[in-house]
Amino acid sequence: MSGAHYGRAFAALQEGCPSDWAAYTRHAFVEGLRSGDLPREAFLHYLKQDYVFLVHFSRAWSLGVVKSETLDEMKVCAGTVDALVNHEMALHVQTCAEAGIDEEALFATREEIENLAYTRFVLDAGLQGDFLDLIAALAPCCFGYGEIGLRLADEAAEGTQYADWIATYSGADYQEAMQAVGTMFDAAIERRLGPDFLNSPRWAALQDRFTTATRLEVGFWDMGLRPA
Amino acid sequence: MSGAHYGRAFAALQEGCPSDWAAYTRHAFVEGLRSGDLPREAFLHYLKQDYVFLVHFSRAWSLGVVKSETLDEMKVCAGTVDALVNHEMALHVQTCAEAGIDEEALFATREEIENLAYTRFVLDAGLQGDFLDLIAALAPCCFGYGEIGLRLADEAAEGTQYADWIATYSGADYQEAMQAVGTMFDAAIERRLGPDFLNSPRWAALQDRFTTATRLEVGFWDMGLRPA
Amino acid sequence: MSGAHYGRAFAALQEGCPSDWAAYTRHAFVEGLRSGDLPREAFLHYLKQDYVFLVHFSRAWSLGVVKSETLDEMKVCAGTVDALVNHEMALHVQTCAEAGIDEEALFATREEIENLAYTRFVLDAGLQGDFLDLIAALAPCCFGYGEIGLRLADEAAEGTQYADWIATYSGADYQEAMQAVGTMFDAAIERRLGPDFLNSPRWAALQDRFTTATRLEVGFWDMGLRPA
Amino acid sequence: MSGAHYGRAFAALQEGCPSDWAAYTRHAFVEGLRSGDLPREAFLHYLKQDYVFLVHFSRAWSLGVVKSETLDEMKVCAGTVDALVNHEMALHVQTCAEAGIDEEALFATREEIENLAYTRFVLDAGLQGDFLDLIAALAPCCFGYGEIGLRLADEAAEGTQYADWIATYSGADYQEAMQAVGTMFDAAIERRLGPDFLNSPRWAALQDRFTTATRLEVGFWDMGLRPA
Repeated sequence: MSGAHYGRAFAALQEGCPSDWAAYTRHAFVEGLRSGDLPREAFLHYLKQDYVFLVHFSRAWSLGVVKSETLDEMKVCAGTVDALVNHEMALHVQTCAEAGIDEEALFATREEIENLAYTRFVLDAGLQGDFLDLIAALAPCCFGYGEIGLRLADEAAEGTQYADWIATYSGADYQEAMQAVGTMFDAAIERRLGPDFLNSPRWAALQDRFTTATRLEVGFWDMGLRPA
Repeated sequence: MSGAHYGRAFAALQEGCPSDWAAYTRHAFVEGLRSGDLPREAFLHYLKQDYVFLVHFSRAWSLGVVKSETLDEMKVCAGTVDALVNHEMALHVQTCAEAGIDEEALFATREEIENLAYTRFVLDAGLQGDFLDLIAALAPCCFGYGEIGLRLADEAAEGTQYADWIATYSGADYQEAMQAVGTMFDAAIERRLGPDFLNSPRWAALQDRFTTATRLEVGFWDMGLRPA
Repeated sequence: MSGAHYGRAFAALQEGCPSDWAAYTRHAFVEGLRSGDLPREAFLHYLKQDYVFLVHFSRAWSLGVVKSETLDEMKVCAGTVDALVNHEMALHVQTCAEAGIDEEALFATREEIENLAYTRFVLDAGLQGDFLDLIAALAPCCFGYGEIGLRLADEAAEGTQYADWIATYSGADYQEAMQAVGTMFDAAIERRLGPDFLNSPRWAALQDRFTTATRLEVGFWDMGLRPA
Repeated sequence: MSGAHYGRAFAALQEGCPSDWAAYTRHAFVEGLRSGDLPREAFLHYLKQDYVFLVHFSRAWSLGVVKSETLDEMKVCAGTVDALVNHEMALHVQTCAEAGIDEEALFATREEIENLAYTRFVLDAGLQGDFLDLIAALAPCCFGYGEIGLRLADEAAEGTQYADWIATYSGADYQEAMQAVGTMFDAAIERRLGPDFLNSPRWAALQDRFTTATRLEVGFWDMGLRPA
């Protein structure tokens, strides 16, 4: 994506699984957001699951603070938790409220397997590995939504009903937050693996975390399209 | 099940989700093991995934040692890790070796989503909660296989090709280990929730961990039947 | 303390270890802050160690987000991390900067054993137990500093050189944050142990976490008085 | 030590903190074990604390299973948990029983700060970092006791009352277990950092974990000599 620049590490990881990355960022669900043809029911299904996703995703970013080894890593992770809990989730709450679903109902949504699999995989990456293992598993969601947001801001059909969603992820707040995450991720990797990190013995394992999380994103969109 | 006695807590949890429990323990996959009609390909598919499952299940039981608060809890959890790593996995290794699949290939099996979802859910139950949260999520696999093993030992078709599998889970080693786990589980619950634990404010949350893990067992059998 | 009201659970825990609580909140170090007689060198020694303490304390509060089971628990824990990383640590940074110590030097301070023991004990309470085990270990620092701050705001010698420290912990920001923590702590306990939580079988273990952390606070002040 | 060969990584880490290593392995407590002049009271004080140490050390080795990424890593960690829980702790139980202290009393021993600091530091190394961070913090105890055992087996005064202790750590069981740990540690490091691991950007952080744990060993012996 010419419009999305979130650092060296992300660029390499994305290029390390091109077909999975395309399956995720060019998924039929995404194209439905772009054209506006995505059925509202599918969007609400997705939004309710995504709310619960963000709860556990916030837990995973908080685990990032637990695993940080520099003040900068701590601050970026803590800032992301704040952005998730106090801003990104607000879009979901507001959109769902308009559809008559309150936040307590959202919080109590029963997770479908694709949702549960994804967040628990990320949390376990943090339990099993170090800060890099965790961030590599968090990255596809963060940067992928940024990339999708920017593309759809360019390509979306005029007057699409999903303009708010697109505006959230293409907006300056989200993009700047993701650039900060990307800068921190590069620094975290160089600190542990050196500047030639692509040739580190650990790189394949980090790519594996990233690729698996990318596949789990594909599953998440599939779930969105499935009748609830 | 008249044949399966693994303690008060397990009995209550199983009765707390009767339809999910039946969907798991009477699944078409299980009936295929009983009759011997389960296609060998499906069994090998399951066995490879189950090997990787046991790797992460051993990690989860080890997390049980980390979370133990009594010497007895530690010993039962550590003993279960030993039984899993050094005995139960051996059946898989041997059966797969006969089918030309060596242990390194087994260890490298790519996890399917139902498999990944299950073990990571259990590990996160341990990260998020306490010893009871973890054991409640571990219980359906442990006790369910014991119950299935005992039933199939009674009901299996003569000469079924799955006699070894049935013998493993109905055998004295497995049954005694599960009785020890059940006794420890009851003691762990009474220690933290008191003798009237069914009326503890935490019971619903523990039931929820158990019920979710039971549903993930159903998904695991579904995966087994799906062409690999 | 008549001035400090942080909820039922805290009141009970504090009353559960009266001599340890007094040893902590009436320590010679605290009395030196009150009178202004604490040598500046001891204060700076304490402040540098406390900066590193707050790094790990922020990690522990972030682990609180990981272990939360309600949206409210998540928000209070995430808010506390933000307050620690972006506000409380700022006092240390500013005071130390005035003494010629920059933040990178602070971050690299070698932890003394009393410091290391305390924060790692809290983090392990979270790894071993559930949300309550973690909060019980976090509580003495949070509420004790609030209580000390309020008392010293009343009793401090006029013109004491430690007026900034006292103002930080007696100030509305800190006091309101601690009241929010106290309210959340009570709710978290009732949710898991019921309204009669003092008679829960788990209460002794929670008291034990609190008492041990209180003793570790005493050690921390002792460390402050020891020549660096 | 000419007699102690536990691999390349351990040799490098030990050489990376020579004065701390000597302070640990040549501590007055150790020399008292060698000469037999260590007061029995000090030995029992140490033994009770060490029993609780081993409880948490077993938790830390179990966390090693949770963090393993190969089957071999899992097996060595699980085997070490078994050796600790079922063998090494038995010496403590037996010796203390002879002195009239039963195992339940041992388990309930109140940890002194040097003890608590050490084990929680190791557990947090595992929570914060990856498998290597954890093993680097576990290593000084494992290999140091092996080295001390071998030296004292050579140098101990004839008829020393501490012959059983020396025999445990110089014996073939302990030495072979530590050689297996050393071999696994080297393989784990090479797998993640490459054969030139001493020049990895992470080496300084691993050395830091090892050095801190070595200093905490010194504190543990100091505690042993302090009147209980």
